[in-house]
Amino acid sequence: MIKVVAKGYIKSGQTDKFKEIASELIKKSRNEEANISYGLYEDTNNKQILTFMEEWKSKDGLEKHMKTEHFVRIMAELGKLQEKDMDINIYTNAM
Amino acid sequence: MIKVVAKGYIKSGQTDKFKEIASELIKKSRNEEANISYGLYEDTNNKQILTFMEEWKSKDGLEKHMKTEHFVRIMAELGKLQEKDMDINIYTNAM
Repeated sequence: MIKVVAKGYIKSGQTDKFKEIASELIKKSRNEEANISYGLYEDTNNKQILTFMEEWKSKDGLEKHMKTEHFVRIMAELGKLQEKDMDINIYTNAM
Repeated sequence: MIKVVAKGYIKSGQTDKFKEIASELIKKSRNEEANISYGLYEDTNNKQILTFMEEWKSKDGLEKHMKTEHFVRIMAELGKLQEKDMDINIYTNAM
């Protein structure tokens, strides 16, 4: 199982728009065969930080996801609302 | 529901020791009433990054956790094996 943490630093005044656009990505990604979970989370200490947390059945499934039309298109739209590139980590169970 | 992502940057040669010590923290934390899940994950691109991902029923439950004997003692031990302070984010559902 693969876990993804993708932390976004959202521009001032853009968090509502980010969430609105993200909702389409979440809905479509959850429908992918390899997806286990896909959600967006808000930092309790800094509302400008919005982070996707995702679980995938396999690395292959994640790679397929990153080539989907919805991922490519929506990530580009979300990129415009962020201060800088997302911090992205891809994890496997450590123990 | 509260999610915690605590990213550790482990000193060279110390990841096995980190995992061994972390296993006690994971076991005891999973037994806490407010815990939903508690795991340790390895970055697929950098094996020196080990990250705790946790889910808690409430902020109160997380705060109680951070005062337990096992958390305070074991986090101090794990701190000695890290290059720098952990990156810690505490999240709630954004939508």
